[in-house]
Amino acid sequence: MRSAHVHRLSMAHPGDLSELERLIAAGTVRAADIVAIIGKTEGNGGVNDFTRGYFTQTLMALLSRHRGKPAADLIREIPCVLSGGTEGVMSPHYSVFSVSDDEPAARRRSKALAIGTAFSAPVPAEDVGRRAHIDSVAAAVREAIDNAGITDLDDVHFVQVKCPCVTVARATAAIAAGKTPLTSDPNKSMAFVRAAGAFGAGLALGEIKASDFDEASLLSNFSIQSPRASISSGVEIESNEVVVLGNSDGWGGHLTIAHRPMTDALDIGGIVEALDDLGIAARPQVSKADLARIACVLVKCEPDRRGQVRGNRHTMLDDTDINAQRHIRGAVAGLVAGVIGDGRIFVSGGAEHQGPDGGGLIAVIAAAQGEGAV
Amino acid sequence: MRSAHVHRLSMAHPGDLSELERLIAAGTVRAADIVAIIGKTEGNGGVNDFTRGYFTQTLMALLSRHRGKPAADLIREIPCVLSGGTEGVMSPHYSVFSVSDDEPAARRRSKALAIGTAFSAPVPAEDVGRRAHIDSVAAAVREAIDNAGITDLDDVHFVQVKCPCVTVARATAAIAAGKTPLTSDPNKSMAFVRAAGAFGAGLALGEIKASDFDEASLLSNFSIQSPRASISSGVEIESNEVVVLGNSDGWGGHLTIAHRPMTDALDIGGIVEALDDLGIAARPQVSKADLARIACVLVKCEPDRRGQVRGNRHTMLDDTDINAQRHIRGAVAGLVAGVIGDGRIFVSGGAEHQGPDGGGLIAVIAAAQGEGAV
Amino acid sequence: MRSAHVHRLSMAHPGDLSELERLIAAGTVRAADIVAIIGKTEGNGGVNDFTRGYFTQTLMALLSRHRGKPAADLIREIPCVLSGGTEGVMSPHYSVFSVSDDEPAARRRSKALAIGTAFSAPVPAEDVGRRAHIDSVAAAVREAIDNAGITDLDDVHFVQVKCPCVTVARATAAIAAGKTPLTSDPNKSMAFVRAAGAFGAGLALGEIKASDFDEASLLSNFSIQSPRASISSGVEIESNEVVVLGNSDGWGGHLTIAHRPMTDALDIGGIVEALDDLGIAARPQVSKADLARIACVLVKCEPDRRGQVRGNRHTMLDDTDINAQRHIRGAVAGLVAGVIGDGRIFVSGGAEHQGPDGGGLIAVIAAAQGEGAV
Amino acid sequence: MRSAHVHRLSMAHPGDLSELERLIAAGTVRAADIVAIIGKTEGNGGVNDFTRGYFTQTLMALLSRHRGKPAADLIREIPCVLSGGTEGVMSPHYSVFSVSDDEPAARRRSKALAIGTAFSAPVPAEDVGRRAHIDSVAAAVREAIDNAGITDLDDVHFVQVKCPCVTVARATAAIAAGKTPLTSDPNKSMAFVRAAGAFGAGLALGEIKASDFDEASLLSNFSIQSPRASISSGVEIESNEVVVLGNSDGWGGHLTIAHRPMTDALDIGGIVEALDDLGIAARPQVSKADLARIACVLVKCEPDRRGQVRGNRHTMLDDTDINAQRHIRGAVAGLVAGVIGDGRIFVSGGAEHQGPDGGGLIAVIAAAQGEGAV
Repeated sequence: MRSAHVHRLSMAHPGDLSELERLIAAGTVRAADIVAIIGKTEGNGGVNDFTRGYFTQTLMALLSRHRGKPAADLIREIPCVLSGGTEGVMSPHYSVFSVSDDEPAARRRSKALAIGTAFSAPVPAEDVGRRAHIDSVAAAVREAIDNAGITDLDDVHFVQVKCPCVTVARATAAIAAGKTPLTSDPNKSMAFVRAAGAFGAGLALGEIKASDFDEASLLSNFSIQSPRASISSGVEIESNEVVVLGNSDGWGGHLTIAHRPMTDALDIGGIVEALDDLGIAARPQVSKADLARIACVLVKCEPDRRGQVRGNRHTMLDDTDINAQRHIRGAVAGLVAGVIGDGRIFVSGGAEHQGPDGGGLIAVIAAAQGEGAV
Repeated sequence: MRSAHVHRLSMAHPGDLSELERLIAAGTVRAADIVAIIGKTEGNGGVNDFTRGYFTQTLMALLSRHRGKPAADLIREIPCVLSGGTEGVMSPHYSVFSVSDDEPAARRRSKALAIGTAFSAPVPAEDVGRRAHIDSVAAAVREAIDNAGITDLDDVHFVQVKCPCVTVARATAAIAAGKTPLTSDPNKSMAFVRAAGAFGAGLALGEIKASDFDEASLLSNFSIQSPRASISSGVEIESNEVVVLGNSDGWGGHLTIAHRPMTDALDIGGIVEALDDLGIAARPQVSKADLARIACVLVKCEPDRRGQVRGNRHTMLDDTDINAQRHIRGAVAGLVAGVIGDGRIFVSGGAEHQGPDGGGLIAVIAAAQGEGAV
Repeated sequence: MRSAHVHRLSMAHPGDLSELERLIAAGTVRAADIVAIIGKTEGNGGVNDFTRGYFTQTLMALLSRHRGKPAADLIREIPCVLSGGTEGVMSPHYSVFSVSDDEPAARRRSKALAIGTAFSAPVPAEDVGRRAHIDSVAAAVREAIDNAGITDLDDVHFVQVKCPCVTVARATAAIAAGKTPLTSDPNKSMAFVRAAGAFGAGLALGEIKASDFDEASLLSNFSIQSPRASISSGVEIESNEVVVLGNSDGWGGHLTIAHRPMTDALDIGGIVEALDDLGIAARPQVSKADLARIACVLVKCEPDRRGQVRGNRHTMLDDTDINAQRHIRGAVAGLVAGVIGDGRIFVSGGAEHQGPDGGGLIAVIAAAQGEGAV
Repeated sequence: MRSAHVHRLSMAHPGDLSELERLIAAGTVRAADIVAIIGKTEGNGGVNDFTRGYFTQTLMALLSRHRGKPAADLIREIPCVLSGGTEGVMSPHYSVFSVSDDEPAARRRSKALAIGTAFSAPVPAEDVGRRAHIDSVAAAVREAIDNAGITDLDDVHFVQVKCPCVTVARATAAIAAGKTPLTSDPNKSMAFVRAAGAFGAGLALGEIKASDFDEASLLSNFSIQSPRASISSGVEIESNEVVVLGNSDGWGGHLTIAHRPMTDALDIGGIVEALDDLGIAARPQVSKADLARIACVLVKCEPDRRGQVRGNRHTMLDDTDINAQRHIRGAVAGLVAGVIGDGRIFVSGGAEHQGPDGGGLIAVIAAAQGEGAV
């Protein structure tokens, strides 16, 4: 019986994987068992955030040494999802997801954390951000769900997808080949791609029907949304990379996951309810004992595009000095960290169609009562 | 019997006082009754934040028209305390404090909100950030407490002081006159001045004894602190300006104030307890009915100078792109706004010696149950 | 005979008009003679740059006192063109343009500096950034040229236009009235409006024919350009405001103006040639004697949208921390100030269709040899 | 006879060494011949700039593959000096310095470019930024000069030193061992260390005598300066790393180097004179033919700490949004790139005691007339 494990590790800088190196050296984590990484690096989270590439290069070199396989291969097998920007009280960290078979399945709950991953075929530049891209994501998400052995879609709680966007070079090549990309602008492309990823995840999860939307719905009909989709996009990849997290009675281990939508940036209720689902009370803050049970906190958020939060004007979208995504990450992380009592939380922006418009979602992985997170 | 009133008003930009103009035109607020303004403008909160000067110029011109007195005089009579920086979910707003005598004192609680203000004599450049400055602040705070008619120091809940710092010009003049200023650097001066202001407030409040410290304690002995002092410093003023907020049985009106220290940036408990003191439950968020009772929220905070929050590294102090004070304001405002359910909160950085080291304080003004804030 | 004068004045902060106050008090400048202001304030130059509003409010209050006319009227008569952002070596300053009749016209050159201003009728929200807007600008520029008494269009050297853009409120009102604005997004609107302004100026100057373009040419056909148009756009105005600067034998005074396009951000040749036209050598820098002749330097520039300068990649467009316009202003100002030897130069971004694509333009006003600038 | 070569290569991002990889693969550069790297990466140039670490990791991995030696060893043998921040028109690039013996020494000038490198012993934390540190730098610079075979100190034109600064951890360890570091603050340490490095270089170059200064002169007596010292400091190193560039008749090759101080940020004269020394005219810009001769441009600069450039106020030091070093790099790079006609220039801030106060220095490496740079 498979068991899923999560090690949440701190880093001193984006090239510091020493904590993982130590765990592998100590035999606590087997390099061969690692299936995915989700982390926050201390860059700006924008186009010129190279902390993600630096971390990934360091990680893949480490895994290459331990697994005896070229880094160039591993990068196509192990999703490494990084969100730049540790604004405010966020602490740079990464969660290492591993799967072992050898562990005695002392399961405390009926269902335990299940993990599945998948990589799609490369998405042609002319398909990026279009219907074909949505379908490609949906297929990869279905494959990852299958890979996780989850049969009831309600048991899926978090779908992380990293989608390729066009680059100027890729768009130019497509045009030269007689194709018509949606846009040649990587920044525009990124937003469409996040929308397409959310639609794809929603399709795979049965939240959205293929007949409910067309391409024009992307970034315009915000009633179409998935409260379980967390999408990022990157210029450095060509395939969709998927990590599905859910609960399954086919898995052992002592972890489970829960999630809730967040209706807006002030929705402390969504945070508290997700914790409640795991038997963790926040009155007003998670206790030290319960905090030790929490293995991972995953949040998506978005500066409300209508310029207001609960009727009061915010200034995030008009700030020429600080990017709006940096603003919202700092604010929502302040709230989530205050409820949890810990700054090692994954709070990522760009939540178009991922949870309610102007809000987002939260997922928490925790151990059963009386157990530590690791 | 005097009654204190608070009108919390939104602004479309730092020169927009139209809501106050409307209230005066409608007779809701008498210009002559206004005793102080505390607000958040959408600048960067740093040396080159001119939104504070813009707002102040606009406000004083408005009051000058209505009170028939030169703006240059009013600026020495009415403290206008502005904190720049509405990071994240904060909404630009200002709270107008006014005092009326004519109102029937339908008081619902034994004590009601009391306000007192004071301006010290100009602080010579060579005294700025030194013992003499501390004593000058202490005297002005005592005068404001007296002006508020508060006799029990425990009834004081918030002491806002705006202290002058040196400018290069002022320091140069002092040196030419044979004096020795602490520093010629306005930025360094500002931090010392905030510390001196906190010490002065602590002295006046009886929290600190004159024999407990010397000048070397400023910015070094952080066990010396006042959880009721909120200090800002500005190049544009020469005197200490004080606003004291407390409760008194000598005042009518339906508002009261409560405060709590915040032990660190994650101290949601301090927020909830301050609300509890006012009979407002946050489970997890203030209800709509209770939200209508809240008139004003005042918070001081600080990026922990030791580089960690609860044992986890934060990156605020090492960020060359975003000032550390902008980071911490955004994070703490995210937490406070999430508990309150409203972004119109005054969250100000630079909390040296103002509450616990690495934390700060919160004060809330609210109406009695069954009453609206205004 | 009319004579044009330019006083270039420094400011200590955006609300500091003390140098102008002094000149008026000393009788050097008559408040009634002031026809336009062009200046650089130390904001960020973006949507949330309030230094422009602060300066304008202070200026209009000052002029209102001296001219005995409400500020609200003056703001519709005297163009006050401010560009935020004094990156790098730029020094905050403003140039006061005044016209006097009483001066003995000891003209040293055949033609002297001529100034004309004009305000168009308000531009309806549905016209903003469209053909009707272009025509409205063209008409206002023609009126200003006429007002300057310039008959030969080759004598026009600089056309500053401040154009209204849509705001969310204005767009919403237009839609409610059954009209279709080009966009409801102020930021998008601003770029289209600058393009429309450049087309309008080009039309009035005979550089572009009405049949050469349609609305789709805006922001797409960058071969259409005016090397004499300098356009800004603002949410705070509803009419096009125009300042035309040229040379005319109908004017007295000792100043003349010259201009050159700048082909890219490294085009030092354009700067040197504009100076050459005024008989000022920069070998490599303007001499002290010649520097005293220079009254005003006006520059438009733009981060090359193709991501390269002379074949080498630049990073301005991909920087999430510093706005691209701040980058380019700092770089081009470094170059221009180095050639001139003075940081009091007006360098403004957003140069779409204003000079060559990826470049911009420079205009310089100087006194005849042997004369000081003022 | 040794010959020095410089290959100036572009990068698409800080982990992109593909151009060097190509040169090695083509046999144009032998990996074993590489002795130093000096480059500009597109980070922010501050404490949290990880583009330098990313580039270094990638470079050392590449060299390790080609030289069959662990990266951990190479990093102590090959100085890799990176300055973060490609503000404005600067283009991310790196100059690869290599030395070959096999080349027919077709020398066109009496002296040719000579390169020497050296690594000092680790500097104990308690010595950092103190006299012992100055002496350690001086010794390493003398060793590098010797290594370059330069006998006349006037033939040294550029001394790049990368100095270790204290980290909180290193300072704490020193204090625990009973030592007294100058400061525990890495940022303060960095400035003192750059000053100590400049003093050390000046000592080695005979520009400064040991009796001319004491420790109190660091960062206070700015008349002490070296117009050939370019100092950076880093938390990641423990030894002083030195690259000396000069001319020597003991070297073959077609390159030579020249340098000039820059008196302030507007000193275009210094740039033009350095080029003149190499027989390159900038009238006003370097011609295409001469541009092809330029192999490397190295500049140090500093925001004038007195708040003015040539009597006009600058705003670099008061900007809470953009770091002052980013401002000055962008401005000076704009000027140098405009004279040269190329954005691939190394412009680095933090020029305390490196050239005139408020200014800095420029060094240029170029091929003989009729030769290309490579």
